[in-house]
Amino acid sequence: MSNTPDLRVGVVGAGLMGTDHITRLTTTIAGATVSAIVEPDETRSAAATALAPGAATYTRIEDALEAGAMDAVVVATPGQFHEPVLLAALRAGLPILCEKPLTPDPESSWRVLETEQAVGRRLIQVGFMRRFDPQYRQLRDLVAAGTAGELLMVRGVHRNPAVPGSYTQQMLINDSVVHEFDVVPWLAGGTIRSVEVRYAKRNALSPAHLREPILVLMELDNDVLVDVEMNVSIQFGYQVATEAVFQRGVARIGQPEGLQLWQDAAFRIAEHEGFGTRFSAAYDAQLRAWVDATRRGEATGPSAWDGYKVAVACAAGVEALGTTGPVALDLPPAPDLYA
Amino acid sequence: MSNTPDLRVGVVGAGLMGTDHITRLTTTIAGATVSAIVEPDETRSAAATALAPGAATYTRIEDALEAGAMDAVVVATPGQFHEPVLLAALRAGLPILCEKPLTPDPESSWRVLETEQAVGRRLIQVGFMRRFDPQYRQLRDLVAAGTAGELLMVRGVHRNPAVPGSYTQQMLINDSVVHEFDVVPWLAGGTIRSVEVRYAKRNALSPAHLREPILVLMELDNDVLVDVEMNVSIQFGYQVATEAVFQRGVARIGQPEGLQLWQDAAFRIAEHEGFGTRFSAAYDAQLRAWVDATRRGEATGPSAWDGYKVAVACAAGVEALGTTGPVALDLPPAPDLYA
Amino acid sequence: MSNTPDLRVGVVGAGLMGTDHITRLTTTIAGATVSAIVEPDETRSAAATALAPGAATYTRIEDALEAGAMDAVVVATPGQFHEPVLLAALRAGLPILCEKPLTPDPESSWRVLETEQAVGRRLIQVGFMRRFDPQYRQLRDLVAAGTAGELLMVRGVHRNPAVPGSYTQQMLINDSVVHEFDVVPWLAGGTIRSVEVRYAKRNALSPAHLREPILVLMELDNDVLVDVEMNVSIQFGYQVATEAVFQRGVARIGQPEGLQLWQDAAFRIAEHEGFGTRFSAAYDAQLRAWVDATRRGEATGPSAWDGYKVAVACAAGVEALGTTGPVALDLPPAPDLYA
Amino acid sequence: MSNTPDLRVGVVGAGLMGTDHITRLTTTIAGATVSAIVEPDETRSAAATALAPGAATYTRIEDALEAGAMDAVVVATPGQFHEPVLLAALRAGLPILCEKPLTPDPESSWRVLETEQAVGRRLIQVGFMRRFDPQYRQLRDLVAAGTAGELLMVRGVHRNPAVPGSYTQQMLINDSVVHEFDVVPWLAGGTIRSVEVRYAKRNALSPAHLREPILVLMELDNDVLVDVEMNVSIQFGYQVATEAVFQRGVARIGQPEGLQLWQDAAFRIAEHEGFGTRFSAAYDAQLRAWVDATRRGEATGPSAWDGYKVAVACAAGVEALGTTGPVALDLPPAPDLYA
Repeated sequence: MSNTPDLRVGVVGAGLMGTDHITRLTTTIAGATVSAIVEPDETRSAAATALAPGAATYTRIEDALEAGAMDAVVVATPGQFHEPVLLAALRAGLPILCEKPLTPDPESSWRVLETEQAVGRRLIQVGFMRRFDPQYRQLRDLVAAGTAGELLMVRGVHRNPAVPGSYTQQMLINDSVVHEFDVVPWLAGGTIRSVEVRYAKRNALSPAHLREPILVLMELDNDVLVDVEMNVSIQFGYQVATEAVFQRGVARIGQPEGLQLWQDAAFRIAEHEGFGTRFSAAYDAQLRAWVDATRRGEATGPSAWDGYKVAVACAAGVEALGTTGPVALDLPPAPDLYA
Repeated sequence: MSNTPDLRVGVVGAGLMGTDHITRLTTTIAGATVSAIVEPDETRSAAATALAPGAATYTRIEDALEAGAMDAVVVATPGQFHEPVLLAALRAGLPILCEKPLTPDPESSWRVLETEQAVGRRLIQVGFMRRFDPQYRQLRDLVAAGTAGELLMVRGVHRNPAVPGSYTQQMLINDSVVHEFDVVPWLAGGTIRSVEVRYAKRNALSPAHLREPILVLMELDNDVLVDVEMNVSIQFGYQVATEAVFQRGVARIGQPEGLQLWQDAAFRIAEHEGFGTRFSAAYDAQLRAWVDATRRGEATGPSAWDGYKVAVACAAGVEALGTTGPVALDLPPAPDLYA
Repeated sequence: MSNTPDLRVGVVGAGLMGTDHITRLTTTIAGATVSAIVEPDETRSAAATALAPGAATYTRIEDALEAGAMDAVVVATPGQFHEPVLLAALRAGLPILCEKPLTPDPESSWRVLETEQAVGRRLIQVGFMRRFDPQYRQLRDLVAAGTAGELLMVRGVHRNPAVPGSYTQQMLINDSVVHEFDVVPWLAGGTIRSVEVRYAKRNALSPAHLREPILVLMELDNDVLVDVEMNVSIQFGYQVATEAVFQRGVARIGQPEGLQLWQDAAFRIAEHEGFGTRFSAAYDAQLRAWVDATRRGEATGPSAWDGYKVAVACAAGVEALGTTGPVALDLPPAPDLYA
Repeated sequence: MSNTPDLRVGVVGAGLMGTDHITRLTTTIAGATVSAIVEPDETRSAAATALAPGAATYTRIEDALEAGAMDAVVVATPGQFHEPVLLAALRAGLPILCEKPLTPDPESSWRVLETEQAVGRRLIQVGFMRRFDPQYRQLRDLVAAGTAGELLMVRGVHRNPAVPGSYTQQMLINDSVVHEFDVVPWLAGGTIRSVEVRYAKRNALSPAHLREPILVLMELDNDVLVDVEMNVSIQFGYQVATEAVFQRGVARIGQPEGLQLWQDAAFRIAEHEGFGTRFSAAYDAQLRAWVDATRRGEATGPSAWDGYKVAVACAAGVEALGTTGPVALDLPPAPDLYA
């Protein structure tokens, strides 16, 4: 591979996630170069360029496309700005790694799907990086192998020590549970049939405008039942874990690892304090897979169709926040491109 | 205590649980003697007497009472026969350790309560032995201490390797979840407000007449949300575990312990294979506490009122097996005797 | 068993361990009664009698023997007073549970052996209660089963949070490692061939007169190599653990168990804080086994010969505290009574 | 960094480790290119070139140096061929990442040190990649922080499932324990003072010419005592773990991680099956650190002096294989370049 020219990647959006992608592309991911940064904010643009001095800077993606400045695009703007960027990059025929969510609602996600189908080949990989986490892959392999029998139930936890003041009640679904909406069907081999939300005793340490933790119940079309505890003010650490209940056994991922310490009458293992350490290898593997597939002219990973399905589940989940009982999902058949 | 005469205990019912109580009383529990065995089946009666040669045998509790053959009674018949035995022993003023459930339905439980109130003092201890398990006690102490903040959610698992053919769908509630109906409110300091049942994908290894595993959702009147996975055909072992979600942390009990083995590219800890090993110390502690309290003329442990509340929850749970959404509980105020 | 009269047990020595035995005998161990307490100190004697009101008190064992006050004897005096008590009880033909060590040196241990042989049957059980610990038994079963291959090496830790000021350098061997001298050969199926001591960096938190932790190396006559870390000032908790290295795997016992807590960015399991919790079940089982065997007229558990072998190993271990390289053990053949 | 030209790396030796380095450099390590491969064997050379098509091939390092084909060198030949390659590369002033051991004996290591000192700056980084393992770094940080008190003892295990027939008795020291000789002093902040070897019961599953497992005892000049179990035929998996005994606690690294499975009456965590998974991140981090330092014109990681000290320890260890008691090390003072 060392003789193929590097893949020229444009990064759209130079906020927290965009900067993280730029750093990985310049220091960890061999075979790719950041050739363009698209960011309207001057301060952010300058900070990002300092990390990738050879990159040209633009304020609009259209200019970067016209300049032929990139072979492929990473989209890392806030979700509400994804649609126009995606449509422009799709029409230019460029491969795209798009941070989750694909777009914030099913209608706009559907328009993206239509455009990709009009182009006629898969160009979008959605940034559901859990699919690249070694432990989720181990668990999916176990489901596929069938050695513990059929999968019957999935019990998840997503625990954050805290969230910023800007985090809203709907973001419990759209920003956090969204990952489970993608990864659980991927693990379990089904599609979400309904979503229900149950409220636990409210955590008095949560920001005043949040009512959480919540328990999200999902039913898949293969009858697998899922319950996910979504908890964003629990303080003790960052923990994303999944317990899969099979016919003949139970498997769990996401437990703490690393240095173990006996001191002060206890045995301790450090827990993660954020997604950075928990999923660092997954972010690397995701980018690695995308760069490699892109250079081979292929598509891989979660598709726009996966992104659309999650947009529909999020809409149902948000509705379930204010509803008693399950909210059913209404999914069209998968377009041919994704079949 | 060695100078007080031994407590003369009559055991009513010499099946599996009754025999187990006789063995403990004769070999493990100092200060008590099995003085009477009440069992209509001759074979069982003979087998039980072999374990406690000094015990007189009866076919009806009334005869044992009339003979003045016992200072206290252990009731270990099947649940549907509890009521007349309890009423007779209560009227005789004898302390009673009654295997769970108190009785199989709220109406008969209420009649037992009325009789105990008529006698005017607490004589019944219900056999919810989890309250005597060291790990449950540790967890309850943690809730009470408040060092991890308020309790918000409880997530439980009750996994059995298999059940006999006589185990019915309603026994998922009345025989198994019944323990959670008692121990979770005791841990969490509340009363059950509603019960809901959700069905997971059916385990094809279950007996044909069972639809399980199920997920039982409970809401307590202090807003704590509870979900319990009830699973009776999972084969891999016997696992009863509880995860308590607090404001600032999470605690878990019931994980495997003991010899750890690295072999064949894996690290292993044996899992329990039945309730005998998991709760053996709890059964001992329960009997110990009851014998001691009885000899002091006091009552301790779960009362008949606790048994009644569980009977009401079971009735709601059984209803929830065939209902969509939560089934609310309707509890009368606690009678003065139990306040 | 409930019809056999209770075993009348005399307890010699009413200090810490003696009182503990009295409490177990009166509250936990069915089938036995404390009938005599032998203790020259009046305060101790009175305190012990309060726990066992029916017991007669004596200042010398000879008086208790003459009075026919006991069927069996528990010896719980300090080790240097064991010999005359043991000789008197042996000559009276009474079964004995003798706290470890049998006696403090090989010469006096040998005299005890000779007396027991003169009586002609096994009367002494030495209080090496680790043999009754469920985890050690599991490990011994694994060695015997051979499913992990032959045992090659044993790596142990014995970690105490602290010791009283009266604890001497020789007690590292005679009071603490003494348990390993008994239990490791019992596990591994061999006899100790040599003992060596290596010094670690001294713990500055140890009492000034102690040089520890130490590493004790033992070689068994079946070539199994053993290293035990002996550590008495480590503060964090009480941990006695053993790792057994087999041909095809490794097994470990003695790791922490019980309530698991995620809080403050860590996962925690409480560690024991003393031998009371770690070995409580073993103490119960030991007494249980002894009472039962005694009532059947049999002997069980570690014999006086086991006690003698440990006395020889302790003498070698103490010598090794001040020696470079291994100190070999010189054991006579086992007398016929113990073959 | 994306604008600096890539570092041109020559890889000397295209066997197992050389090929692994070539793969990492071409696929994982941004900022570096394999520009030269030095390998006399034609088949190996061709296979390696297929992985790095742009690389020029040579049979002798002198030719590669003369051609100016590389900015830096990775030495991955067998250890007995290291010396001439190192001397040539040093004289050419090139930075070197040299697989362990530096050279196979203290004399040749010393000649390498003299040459590096004649050049006048640190050019060699020895491939002791454990120093880059996140868990070893965590443990070293804990030692340095002192929060658990002073380090007193280190207890290690190095367990291999099997070794090839070419693995000799001396390789127990020179190929395996060699890592402990580097990493333990690095962790513990001292220098090895003596080495002793004790033999466990021989594993009958070992190749006939091996007598193992062994226990290697090291004493550091800060009095820390170390014992390492070295075990190469244990079959169950690959386990490298270290327990550090402090004044106030104990820390352990290297335990299994990842997917946890309850099945067949046991709880299981997969154990590593080889060094590839256990140390993959460390190998990456090592190469990453070296490439970065090299491009900045600096040296980092284990130096040639570290390599020399390990060569001396290995010589002592090999001697200890056939000796009773500790073998002392005789180290010259550190040359100024490494002070």
